[in-house]
Amino acid sequence: MRSGATNFLAATAGKRPDRTPVWYMRQAGRHLPEYRRLRGDGSILEAIARPEVAAEITLQPVRRYGVDAAVLFSDIVVPAHAVGFGIDVRPGVGPVVEEPLRRASDVDRLRPLTADDVAHVSDTVKLVRAELDDDVALLGFAGAPFTVASYLVEGRPSRTYEHTKALMHTDERTWHTLMERLTQSAATFLALQIEAGADAFQLFDSWAGALAQPEYERFVAPHTRSLFAAMERRCPDSPGIHFGVGCDHLLEAFKATGPRVMGLDWRTSITDARTRLGDDTVVQGNLDPALVLAGADVALGAAQAVLDDNAGHPGHIFNLGHGVLPGTDPGVLAAVTDLVHEADVR
Amino acid sequence: MRSGATNFLAATAGKRPDRTPVWYMRQAGRHLPEYRRLRGDGSILEAIARPEVAAEITLQPVRRYGVDAAVLFSDIVVPAHAVGFGIDVRPGVGPVVEEPLRRASDVDRLRPLTADDVAHVSDTVKLVRAELDDDVALLGFAGAPFTVASYLVEGRPSRTYEHTKALMHTDERTWHTLMERLTQSAATFLALQIEAGADAFQLFDSWAGALAQPEYERFVAPHTRSLFAAMERRCPDSPGIHFGVGCDHLLEAFKATGPRVMGLDWRTSITDARTRLGDDTVVQGNLDPALVLAGADVALGAAQAVLDDNAGHPGHIFNLGHGVLPGTDPGVLAAVTDLVHEADVR
Repeated sequence: MRSGATNFLAATAGKRPDRTPVWYMRQAGRHLPEYRRLRGDGSILEAIARPEVAAEITLQPVRRYGVDAAVLFSDIVVPAHAVGFGIDVRPGVGPVVEEPLRRASDVDRLRPLTADDVAHVSDTVKLVRAELDDDVALLGFAGAPFTVASYLVEGRPSRTYEHTKALMHTDERTWHTLMERLTQSAATFLALQIEAGADAFQLFDSWAGALAQPEYERFVAPHTRSLFAAMERRCPDSPGIHFGVGCDHLLEAFKATGPRVMGLDWRTSITDARTRLGDDTVVQGNLDPALVLAGADVALGAAQAVLDDNAGHPGHIFNLGHGVLPGTDPGVLAAVTDLVHEADVR
Repeated sequence: MRSGATNFLAATAGKRPDRTPVWYMRQAGRHLPEYRRLRGDGSILEAIARPEVAAEITLQPVRRYGVDAAVLFSDIVVPAHAVGFGIDVRPGVGPVVEEPLRRASDVDRLRPLTADDVAHVSDTVKLVRAELDDDVALLGFAGAPFTVASYLVEGRPSRTYEHTKALMHTDERTWHTLMERLTQSAATFLALQIEAGADAFQLFDSWAGALAQPEYERFVAPHTRSLFAAMERRCPDSPGIHFGVGCDHLLEAFKATGPRVMGLDWRTSITDARTRLGDDTVVQGNLDPALVLAGADVALGAAQAVLDDNAGHPGHIFNLGHGVLPGTDPGVLAAVTDLVHEADVR
């Protein structure tokens, strides 16, 4: 284990950091002019495949904001793309699959991920780690099995998840086989990032909030739990953060899958999360990214409200409650970062 | 007050009906071949403006399914359209506004609604009432002030509600003025439907789930509360149902605005709602519409699970947890309706 990234890692363990660590989901993204210059209009998967480009994009927000963590510039469909499933990320649309996964035989199109398939990601992590100040954490990430499955099965972003729900309810065996493969793939992908130099990881189950709690418990939780357990065995020094959007009704169920840190969106207050999950719960979040667009006064007021909600608890990583929106003013996000860094820690 | 619609109205009062009443949000819609034949490709607002057409569409699902309530074929943007705000419903997109409402002076474009503006809706209600069996309830509806405001301010369907949130947080006076106008408009619109023959009404705050609870309490709840209070004064015999999507984190706040019936989506179990809100809470819902697409076996199993969740409580109106999806097989929805009607009531 590295000896750096002390503030970030202290907070993930509920130990008092020198200052509240802060990073932003999608901090490496379209809202930054330096990102837009570098990326241009090409496919995001092409940019991810070029370690020098991906490393530079990863570092941009660290330089600009002085955040406490870099998050690898990547995408949750990278492993499925790397094994040749036939998935792409279409600008303005999102992940699109040529032939969606709808039946048992389609699962065989998803062969096990190997380190060689994503060697470029490993290279990117090493490049970033070499450039990064020792005290800045580097976060890897992966899509959780359910959210990745929803893209593979729906074939494009969905609001109803009707094909995904139909598969789980009509062919439970195929569903669980699919989830097992995606669990293996995510574990391989995360371990590879950590072995290359990442300090911690975030697991995105972004769309799990579309499920009722009994569905989540039956069709999803066992796999997420097995993924966190595998990570605890393979990478015991690397804490995992679990995050989904609109998952307030699944809060207890998410916690029970075993993450060390609970990522919250703005619908769940930090106070409420600790009331429901225990006062020692380490949380990440949860400023509404839409409020950052409403100008510095609103953003700073709302950021202070997040700090007040946390009430100086040591187990808090400041973040937004979802990704940085493309129209965000970097100056406002810089001011929010400074506010968080200047706040007192209990 | 009419003496009919006994099963439906009994359930809304928590009194034992002869059978569990059932209707479906968007039961008059694209999933019905008879609807598609009648509607063709024209604008929905044009169809709503023709009382004979709108009445026929309203009656179609009652004839086909034998449901316990007809819901007026209408749209939540009808009042804003009727006062000439410049809003249309674009097929495949949703409500679109030419010049979105972004500043104080824009609020004046929303003049008060009068009965004359929506005389066609009144005519439709009368036509439906004349055709409908006495024992079938007729439901009017309106968009809640927040959800209507979100369309007027964003200008098109949104996932972030960034302009709406910016307006409420940066110009609270304008926001509240806007909400007051929309409250007046919704009350006028609902009272007109009830005076023309509707038995009850549903208020849709479909997108309120995008708000954190403190935001909802400050910017929305006072207006919704004043709307329900106005309805209790003007139409004391006509119960109101309140519904939003993904509002589990706002459950108590919704209840406190004063509806007699709480509409639930599938993310909130009926058991949990009664634990949190009191055992005498009357609920409506909450079968996931995506599961109706997964075939009769899955749909009937999930419908039975909803009935089991309610455990024979008299205060239950069976419904989906959101609108009927366009790909729904009417045969499956007919089978669900029969299952509900044959279930024992405590």
